[in-house]
Amino acid sequence: MKALKERIQKDGRCFPGGILKVDNFINHQMDPILMKSMAVEFVRRFAGTEINKILTVEASGIAPAIMVGYLLELPVVFAKKRKPSTMENMLETEVFSFTKNQTYTICVSKDYIQPEDKVLFIDDFLANGNAGKGIMDLVNQAGAKLVGMGFLIEKAFQSGGNMLREMNIHVESLAIIKSLDNCEIKFKED
Amino acid sequence: MKALKERIQKDGRCFPGGILKVDNFINHQMDPILMKSMAVEFVRRFAGTEINKILTVEASGIAPAIMVGYLLELPVVFAKKRKPSTMENMLETEVFSFTKNQTYTICVSKDYIQPEDKVLFIDDFLANGNAGKGIMDLVNQAGAKLVGMGFLIEKAFQSGGNMLREMNIHVESLAIIKSLDNCEIKFKED
Repeated sequence: MKALKERIQKDGRCFPGGILKVDNFINHQMDPILMKSMAVEFVRRFAGTEINKILTVEASGIAPAIMVGYLLELPVVFAKKRKPSTMENMLETEVFSFTKNQTYTICVSKDYIQPEDKVLFIDDFLANGNAGKGIMDLVNQAGAKLVGMGFLIEKAFQSGGNMLREMNIHVESLAIIKSLDNCEIKFKED
Repeated sequence: MKALKERIQKDGRCFPGGILKVDNFINHQMDPILMKSMAVEFVRRFAGTEINKILTVEASGIAPAIMVGYLLELPVVFAKKRKPSTMENMLETEVFSFTKNQTYTICVSKDYIQPEDKVLFIDDFLANGNAGKGIMDLVNQAGAKLVGMGFLIEKAFQSGGNMLREMNIHVESLAIIKSLDNCEIKFKED
């Protein structure tokens, strides 16, 4: 997606070790107009897919997910990163974060992911795919169907994209980064 | 706001101790169409206010805030509940949560709240007003101006609303709950 790639070139900041920071328009400050445009692009890319629910993970996934849900007029569920003491019927799974070098739990209520659901997962980053695997586990536990995964930014030099696609998941990433070597942002061609 | 009050009556669940759960359409599963309608109502209520930035706190504030930002075409910043290890220039403050009976840190980057900013704070709940006080502190530290606070739901039987209004903050709440006694939801009349 051209507008996103241009914005990453303009405002993304690259750090040694393959780190790309997009705090200026996605992860801390958010550009709602760009969020809407990205949501439109997801709608286009999943046009042939039957979807009745959008799923994401707090916190950075919520903005793009709510925009997709708004355009498609579908409910949006965000998986929580801590198990709320006041919630029952929670499905949970463990996710290992390479960025933070720690394992955390994500959970979702059985009330909101049900066996008949056709779930589109939306998130900001795809790197090692561990959050994606956790989401697959939650959707499986619920007996629902995962019909696709949409990411704003994919790091193609990490293994998550290949892993998820080899599992026959319909993965769409709006900007795919081939390399961040020498802190130069290189995109894969569309 | 009629549509929100009706939805709270229909889908809100009340528990002893003044607890109202709206997981079905705000806090875990979200209704994006209602979110948009609530954002329109905030735009109407803050029509006379000069605003150039929307501020919220992760995670439940993000969806209403991004919708307000989308309608007003303004950037949206979400304060984080943990200090990210990779971020510099962070302003931080402590917030005590009665619900969780613990103190947590919220933080925001100086890069995204600047002295010239006129900040509208948007959040899901106003109860004791501690998150609101924390936000005031962050905005003050940044040298910016807080021009208003908009909440989806206010519990008028707790002290936050009075406290913030006595500090001359322009507070708008879309549904004000007078009482949850005997687990019956009673609204304050508009």
